[in-house]
Amino acid sequence: MRLPHGACGCTVDGDAAGVGGDQGNQINQCKGILMMTEEKHVLSILVDNQPGVLSRIAGLFSGRGYNIDSLCVAATTDPLISRITISTKANMTVMEQIKKQLNKLINVIKVHELTGSQYVEREMVLVKITAKPDKRAEILRIVDIFRCKIVDVGTDHYTIEATGDEEKIAAILSLLKPIGIKEIARTGVIALFRESKQNGQTR
Amino acid sequence: MRLPHGACGCTVDGDAAGVGGDQGNQINQCKGILMMTEEKHVLSILVDNQPGVLSRIAGLFSGRGYNIDSLCVAATTDPLISRITISTKANMTVMEQIKKQLNKLINVIKVHELTGSQYVEREMVLVKITAKPDKRAEILRIVDIFRCKIVDVGTDHYTIEATGDEEKIAAILSLLKPIGIKEIARTGVIALFRESKQNGQTR
Repeated sequence: MRLPHGACGCTVDGDAAGVGGDQGNQINQCKGILMMTEEKHVLSILVDNQPGVLSRIAGLFSGRGYNIDSLCVAATTDPLISRITISTKANMTVMEQIKKQLNKLINVIKVHELTGSQYVEREMVLVKITAKPDKRAEILRIVDIFRCKIVDVGTDHYTIEATGDEEKIAAILSLLKPIGIKEIARTGVIALFRESKQNGQTR
Repeated sequence: MRLPHGACGCTVDGDAAGVGGDQGNQINQCKGILMMTEEKHVLSILVDNQPGVLSRIAGLFSGRGYNIDSLCVAATTDPLISRITISTKANMTVMEQIKKQLNKLINVIKVHELTGSQYVEREMVLVKITAKPDKRAEILRIVDIFRCKIVDVGTDHYTIEATGDEEKIAAILSLLKPIGIKEIARTGVIALFRESKQNGQTR
């Protein structure tokens, strides 16, 4: 796998890899650091819609002590096939191992890693927030700015539905937190590849 | 648990339960049928955000041969606690057993069953759809009617983000299917209790 130059903060030119000596060693060290650095990975996995598949896949991660940051599973348009989207932090070496193990499972149809390519990423969150009369205008301003929806109203609360990427959701939550979050439920990341913007190009 | 009268299609008055004889037997039969009927259940589970918890919870369902229709897991505002929302079809007896087993797990903090109470349910779906020039106006009409968003556009496709309850998502997908769905990724159900609409009432 080709690593992007400078991703590890290295100042040595990647083309100097053949020169050997100190520079060559430094590049190999940098590659080693990159292979060990834990980064966010998004996996999209098509599986048979059968009992036990999810448990086996989640077990692959926990068996290596890696936590799943978020996971979504639901049927596709074909009710016999489900799509699992997993967001996790792991280093490249472990990620490669997990992908190989996933591909070996009999109920796994296809494994895509979206990291490193162009993809659309979305997440949804339901936030139940304390809405005292003096705070309602401020809540409505935030809802308006972030294009959220209010999906339930009570005597002293609003339930807000917000969608966006991870950064947007984090921004909404950090603005709502001082007002008083009672409960939240978030879906975790789902993602699809972006297709080409030019005729005749495929990903 | 008190069962709603007539839920099984029974014509016998529930108050007649004490009369014994044929009518009493019929009511007991009806209750038995209800306990065995598979219905949709939504569980909201607060758990420690640790590796292995998801695998154990998914294993509880698959161990009984019950498929999970959809599952979402992501951290709450407290990064040490995650919320798992599970939608499944099971009969009441099995559901009671699963809830008891869940409560026994050391990493499970709280189990709520939302079925039977007032709750807000939402789901999100990303749909990549073939957008030939003659179909674009029709797609935009559907997007407008269902208040969806177009989140990516290519030379021959649109990616649409839609949110709503299960019925709304099913309606959008059935309208988009004849136009040509390339790929979908859906989050599965997330849900929060509705709070009281009257002062001084709690759920």
